Amino acid sequence: METVYITRRETFNAAHRLHRDDWSEEQNEEVFGKCANKNWHGHNFSIYVTVKGKPHPDTGFVINLKDLSRIIKELVVEPMDHRNLNIDVPFMKGLMASTENIVVQVWEILKEPVREAGGELAKIKLVETENNYVEYYGGKEVY
Amino acid sequence: METVYITRRETFNAAHRLHRDDWSEEQNEEVFGKCANKNWHGHNFSIYVTVKGKPHPDTGFVINLKDLSRIIKELVVEPMDHRNLNIDVPFMKGLMASTENIVVQVWEILKEPVREAGGELAKIKLVETENNYVEYYGGKEVY
Amino acid sequence: METVYITRRETFNAAHRLHRDDWSEEQNEEVFGKCANKNWHGHNFSIYVTVKGKPHPDTGFVINLKDLSRIIKELVVEPMDHRNLNIDVPFMKGLMASTENIVVQVWEILKEPVREAGGELAKIKLVETENNYVEYYGGKEVY
Amino acid sequence: METVYITRRETFNAAHRLHRDDWSEEQNEEVFGKCANKNWHGHNFSIYVTVKGKPHPDTGFVINLKDLSRIIKELVVEPMDHRNLNIDVPFMKGLMASTENIVVQVWEILKEPVREAGGELAKIKLVETENNYVEYYGGKEVY
Amino acid sequence: METVYITRRETFNAAHRLHRDDWSEEQNEEVFGKCANKNWHGHNFSIYVTVKGKPHPDTGFVINLKDLSRIIKELVVEPMDHRNLNIDVPFMKGLMASTENIVVQVWEILKEPVREAGGELAKIKLVETENNYVEYYGGKEVY
Amino acid sequence: METVYITRRETFNAAHRLHRDDWSEEQNEEVFGKCANKNWHGHNFSIYVTVKGKPHPDTGFVINLKDLSRIIKELVVEPMDHRNLNIDVPFMKGLMASTENIVVQVWEILKEPVREAGGELAKIKLVETENNYVEYYGGKEVY
Repeated sequence: METVYITRRETFNAAHRLHRDDWSEEQNEEVFGKCANKNWHGHNFSIYVTVKGKPHPDTGFVINLKDLSRIIKELVVEPMDHRNLNIDVPFMKGLMASTENIVVQVWEILKEPVREAGGELAKIKLVETENNYVEYYGGKEVY
Repeated sequence: METVYITRRETFNAAHRLHRDDWSEEQNEEVFGKCANKNWHGHNFSIYVTVKGKPHPDTGFVINLKDLSRIIKELVVEPMDHRNLNIDVPFMKGLMASTENIVVQVWEILKEPVREAGGELAKIKLVETENNYVEYYGGKEVY
Repeated sequence: METVYITRRETFNAAHRLHRDDWSEEQNEEVFGKCANKNWHGHNFSIYVTVKGKPHPDTGFVINLKDLSRIIKELVVEPMDHRNLNIDVPFMKGLMASTENIVVQVWEILKEPVREAGGELAKIKLVETENNYVEYYGGKEVY
Repeated sequence: METVYITRRETFNAAHRLHRDDWSEEQNEEVFGKCANKNWHGHNFSIYVTVKGKPHPDTGFVINLKDLSRIIKELVVEPMDHRNLNIDVPFMKGLMASTENIVVQVWEILKEPVREAGGELAKIKLVETENNYVEYYGGKEVY
Repeated sequence: METVYITRRETFNAAHRLHRDDWSEEQNEEVFGKCANKNWHGHNFSIYVTVKGKPHPDTGFVINLKDLSRIIKELVVEPMDHRNLNIDVPFMKGLMASTENIVVQVWEILKEPVREAGGELAKIKLVETENNYVEYYGGKEVY
Repeated sequence: METVYITRRETFNAAHRLHRDDWSEEQNEEVFGKCANKNWHGHNFSIYVTVKGKPHPDTGFVINLKDLSRIIKELVVEPMDHRNLNIDVPFMKGLMASTENIVVQVWEILKEPVREAGGELAKIKLVETENNYVEYYGGKEVY
C-alpha cells in the first residue's frame, strides 16, 4: 500500500579534471578555474542511492540493503574508486567529468540491476565536497 | 500563500533483531545475515520529522518547534529510547523491526497530534547508520 | 533532456530574537521561550541553494558553481553574516526573524540572479541547528 | 590502575561581540573585523568536557554521565544558552567574550563540582564554528 | 627522527545493558537509569585506533593502513559487530559493558598485533553517541 | 598564566599517488594497493592547525584567527588546493605523497610564520578521509 524510500551510502576517492581540449587555456581558466589544473585534483565522493517500494510483508524490506550495497560497490564504486574519472572509467569516456554527468551515467548503470533485486531506483545523490552535491531522479523534474 | 517545510530532529538508542521464527536458521542467515543475531544488536537512531504549512503572520512559525519536539519525544522517543524494538515497543508488536516498518508506524502515531498542534505532517526520515536511512511521505509516491 | 539538481552550501553567523512588542512579556515567553531573550542569541546558519537544469553539453554544468557561490555570498551571506537579523538586514525589516521568514525572503532575492546565471532556482534549505531546519520550494507544495 | 578519559558534549546558542570601548572604531575594525558589529552576531556552541579517572569496579564508570551532564547543564549551559555572552553571563563580566576566555572561566566553574561527583576535570573543548575551536587543560601545557 | 600519529576509524553496531545482578532494581535504576533496561538497548560505535612512529623512508608510512584496518576488523570489529556486548563477546565476560571497560580491553587486544605490524599503539577512542566518548592511552595519564 | 590551545580548520582538494619507481609493479601493488593507480586518485583534505599561548589581555586572543587563516591559506592551501601532490607541490618534491610526510612538511612551513603572528605552533592534524588522519606535534612524542 505505502511507498517507502530507502537509501544506501557508499564512498569512493577519485581524481578528475574539468577541461576542454578544443578551448584555449584562457577559456578553460575562465570557466573551470582551478578545476582545469592539468595535473588533476581529486575528491572523496559519497554516493547515496535511493530505492522506493512497498515493504515486503515477510522481511519488512523495500530492498535487502546487502543486495543494494553489493550492486553499488560492483557497478559504481569498483570502476571509480582510486581512479581517474577522465581516463580510467569506461562509462565516463567522451564526457566532461562533472558531477552532473557522473550522476546521470550512474542512474543508467543502476536502474536495471536495482529492478532485478526487487526495487525501483528513485534518486541518486552524489556529494563532491561539504559545499556541493548533485541529485538526479532519472531526469524527472520533481520540484 | 507560500508553503514552507520545517524539520525537527530527535534521537534515540535501541536494540533490535531481524528474524522470523517461522523460517529456518539458514533462511534467516541468508536474508538477514548478522542482523539475525539471537542476542540482539543496536543502533543510535536519528528521526527527522518534517511539517508543512504557511508561516503564521504573528509568529513566522509553520509550527512551534517546542510543540513539535514535545510531541515527538512523548510519542516516539519515549517508547523506543533505550528499549528493545522487538519486545518493548507496543506499536511494533507483530511487525518485523525494520526501519521501513518503524517509519510507517511513526507516521500513523504523529499525524493527528501534529495536526492538533497546527501543522501538517509531510515527511519522516529515520537514520539507522551513517550508511542507511528510510524516508516516508505518508505512503505517497513523491518522485 | 534530463533535469539534474545541483546544490551549493554557504554559511553565516548571526544574532536574532523572536519577540513581538505588541504582546505582553508573558505571551512572548509562552510562545517564544528562551528565543525571546531581550539581549539576543545567535546561531551558525548553513544555507543550501539548489538549482535545476540540464547539464550544458560543453561544460557538463547545470550552473557554474563559481557563479552560484558568488551570487549567494553577495546577496545573502554578506547582508546577514556577523549581523543582527532583526536590526541589520534590510530584507527582514518588519518581519519576525524566524527561519521560515528568512527562507522565503532569500528565495525572492535569489530567483532572478540565478536565472540570469543560466539556472532555475529549485529549493532553499536553511539549517539553524543540528536539530532544526526549513526548506522552501518557492511556495510550491511538493509533497 | 589505568586512567581512562571520558567526554560529554553539551550545546548552547548565544550572541556575542568582540569590541573594546577604549579603542577607536578603526582599531576595533582592524583587530576584530566583522566580530565587532555593534548589533551582535552569534553561534551554535558545542562544549566537550573531559574527565579522567579509573573505572569504578562496581559500575565500570569513571564518572556517571548523568551526573556530568547535569553539572554542565546547570552551571554552564543554563547561564549561556540563548543569552548574550557580553551582557547576560555573570562569569564573563569584564572579560572579552572570546572563546579563549570562556573556556578558562568554564574550567574554574566545573573543577570542584566534577571532583565532588567523583571525577577529575581534564580538558574542556569549546567549538564555535566548524572552522575553529579552543581547548584548555587547566592552564597546563600538555604538548 | 620525528614521531607522527596516524589514526584509523572502524565502526560496529552492538547491543548492551548496564546492570548488576547483585544490586536491587532500585539501585540499578538509580545508577544506570534507562541503560539498565532488561531487554537491552544499543548503539552505533566508532572506534579510532591511533598508532605512533616515524614514517618509513621507503613508504612514508608509520604503519600500512591496510594492515591496521585488517587487525582492527579481525580482532575488535568482528567479535563485537551486530553482537550483544554482555553475552556474545569473550573479552567482556565478567565485566560491566561500559565504554570505559571496552576501551581498556581493546587496548590489550591490539597492543601486540600493532607492534608486529611495525607500529606502536598510542591511543584508542571509542565513540558511543554524538554526545559521549572515551579515550585511553594504555593507562597513562597524559594530561 | 594559563595556556590555551586554539585551532583553525582549512580545506583543500588534491590528487596524489603512492608509488615507487624503483620497485616492481608487484611490490607497489602489494604495499600501496589501489593507492598506486598510475592515473592518480584524490581526496578532500581538511587541515587543523593548533596554536598555543596565553590569551592577550586586550583581545582575549591567543592568536588572531584572521591572521592564522591567512597564513594557512597562503602557505599551505594555495600550493596544494586543486593540485597534484606528487607533481605540483614544491615542498613535496622527492617525497612519498603520504599524509605523514605532508604533515611534517607543513609543520616546517608554518612554524615561523605562526611565531611572527604572535603564537606558537602546537599541533597539525590532516584528515584524508572520514576513516583516517594523521597528527603531528613537531616530532615530539606527547603520549
